[in-house]
Amino acid sequence: MSDAPPPVTPPDRILMGPGPSDISPRVLSAMAAPTVGHLDPYFLRIMDETQTMLRQVFRTDNALTMSVSGTGSAGMEACVVNLVEPGDRVVVCVNGVFGGRMSDVATRCGAEVTTIERPFGEVFTPEEIEDVVKRVSPKAVGIVHAETSTGALQPLEDVSRIVHDAGALLLTDCVTSLGGCPVEIDDWQIDAAYSGTQKCLSCPPGLAPVTFSPRAVAAIEQRTHKVASWYLDITMVRNYWSDQSRAYHHTAPINMNYGLHEALRIVLEEGLEARHARHRQNHLALRAGLEAMGVEFAVAAAHRLPMLNAVRIPERVDDKAVRSQLLTDYGIEIGGGLGPLAGKTWRIGLMGEASTRRNVILFLTALEACLKSQGHISPAGAGVAAANEAYPTI
Amino acid sequence: MSDAPPPVTPPDRILMGPGPSDISPRVLSAMAAPTVGHLDPYFLRIMDETQTMLRQVFRTDNALTMSVSGTGSAGMEACVVNLVEPGDRVVVCVNGVFGGRMSDVATRCGAEVTTIERPFGEVFTPEEIEDVVKRVSPKAVGIVHAETSTGALQPLEDVSRIVHDAGALLLTDCVTSLGGCPVEIDDWQIDAAYSGTQKCLSCPPGLAPVTFSPRAVAAIEQRTHKVASWYLDITMVRNYWSDQSRAYHHTAPINMNYGLHEALRIVLEEGLEARHARHRQNHLALRAGLEAMGVEFAVAAAHRLPMLNAVRIPERVDDKAVRSQLLTDYGIEIGGGLGPLAGKTWRIGLMGEASTRRNVILFLTALEACLKSQGHISPAGAGVAAANEAYPTI
Repeated sequence: MSDAPPPVTPPDRILMGPGPSDISPRVLSAMAAPTVGHLDPYFLRIMDETQTMLRQVFRTDNALTMSVSGTGSAGMEACVVNLVEPGDRVVVCVNGVFGGRMSDVATRCGAEVTTIERPFGEVFTPEEIEDVVKRVSPKAVGIVHAETSTGALQPLEDVSRIVHDAGALLLTDCVTSLGGCPVEIDDWQIDAAYSGTQKCLSCPPGLAPVTFSPRAVAAIEQRTHKVASWYLDITMVRNYWSDQSRAYHHTAPINMNYGLHEALRIVLEEGLEARHARHRQNHLALRAGLEAMGVEFAVAAAHRLPMLNAVRIPERVDDKAVRSQLLTDYGIEIGGGLGPLAGKTWRIGLMGEASTRRNVILFLTALEACLKSQGHISPAGAGVAAANEAYPTI
Repeated sequence: MSDAPPPVTPPDRILMGPGPSDISPRVLSAMAAPTVGHLDPYFLRIMDETQTMLRQVFRTDNALTMSVSGTGSAGMEACVVNLVEPGDRVVVCVNGVFGGRMSDVATRCGAEVTTIERPFGEVFTPEEIEDVVKRVSPKAVGIVHAETSTGALQPLEDVSRIVHDAGALLLTDCVTSLGGCPVEIDDWQIDAAYSGTQKCLSCPPGLAPVTFSPRAVAAIEQRTHKVASWYLDITMVRNYWSDQSRAYHHTAPINMNYGLHEALRIVLEEGLEARHARHRQNHLALRAGLEAMGVEFAVAAAHRLPMLNAVRIPERVDDKAVRSQLLTDYGIEIGGGLGPLAGKTWRIGLMGEASTRRNVILFLTALEACLKSQGHISPAGAGVAAANEAYPTI
């Protein structure tokens, strides 16, 4: 077969976009372990261990905690499609692309969706949530914890109190936050949450960790309509993941689950507090460096994500030319803006394995050169110097 | 973290069940290649090459040919949910678990589903299809090419003619057939087909190759309702896979796609004809061996799958004891029966990398010992001798 493509030999990248993030060789190695059957006693043990570790990372005792066999968006759809029945009233808070996506998913489920909106990059006040919840009396409120499209972090504790006082369920998008900043499922009384493997957990994309509170499970068990998606029907999927029946539902992505297992081991070895502190430290150093180079953040200081830094593209600087030069000359991937922010912002990820001092320094050096070639001049080395100063001296 | 589970170290298995099948070290190695971004020019090239190779394996020129980011059942749901709108009349042919699943998926989409049934292990005659198609005038007819639950192969050419004469679309489940026996999407005029990676393609589970004919694409483009599943909405997913816009939809499972790319390279290196012949040869040898041991097939000779051999569990033999002994003493996984065949049949896979003379011989030897310990005695070595005789002498 002379016209066959060559084998897979990816270029050397540093993944500093909105995900996927850099992957530990330990995780890649686990992905390459020999495949076993999806009902093999060994794989059932891996599933059990993964559930236990996911509960630790989500900070929850929820029995129904597992990985959905799809990427983060499948996790979103799994949460929505199981909680929501046709005709249910649902509030979705939209301040970015992923809030908009959640509204679309809920509408496709036949929900009566009410959206409230904030400009991209801003977050919601508890009062705004209270107003709409009182007005609509929804079954569920959906909100994004870490908006990957804008770089904004939504505080959830007051929102949770308001939603529960109104007797509604709280559904949160934790795709980008989990493993990079505090996500307290039980303390914050979140009823359903989904994440992705390819952000701060630093596992390749392909699985979506999800967790459902006992209140969410009760709502699912009281459904009067079948779940619209067979593939994502948690009432069947959970029998495969549970201790008792292990009833076959679909053939789980075995090697992806190997990878997640190792990624979770790494997260717990580091410890959640230390991991969050590392993300925050590198974010602060990057921020100091960017500001010294005259690059401004697109999100107010109080609501910036530590793992995803959204900055305004400086005036007269060509978005794509800079991203292309970063990729070509330095092997560094960063993300462009999404939705109305396309061409206006960059999204610089410092997620999981990629959140290192080495990457902060290298990126600032590379960005200085790329901006210079676009006519945006900053004092030589000012970014790196400011970043270095932001690190504590030992 | 003293209570952390140990790292992933799977036991050594020979995967001779209904899938996953054994995986080439080349594919496992590709899965462990460094992750790049889902919009990286390198990954877009991998997607293009994968599409080209999938078209060769599906034997089609269909532009809309790609992998869905989920397992085979997600491929089924992707085909059904895109082709079918609420209120559409759909015929589903049910002669096993996966036909039943397709009917369930179509019902959840709001289709008016008419099923026709044959006992598990049998196939449909063209006349049966003709009767129901004339009676119902459906928009689409769904049928399973290779029923993984029963081991029966459904001929499709006459069915296709009948379905198209009635102006309907033909949707086929090729999960187990693709890469192991002829699947002729264009010659047979199949409008939509889905497969899985973990059967005769010998890639770990996690992706579902799908293909849609221009007629299917036209039907999708004429929809009046949004597709019920956001994650599987082909009208959006195809923009990411197409040459033009590459619009972000979801973050593709990068490393799974590396694995599929290498698995397809291996399939095309061997060549489809040679690969089908190998599957048939090993099936015939296994069959000769089983028959010499007094083990009967559960499917009539004319309709047996070459890659999945469903046999009746001999009388007074304990199903689980034998499967457990095969796994423990020999590291061999075979499958039990599904649905009404649970406890009555075994499903012995010879799929992809696992379809080898070595595995046929080893399995027959192991089965002889396991059956002997259950009181089912056959002449020593008779199975292996018969199998060896079935291979051509060089």
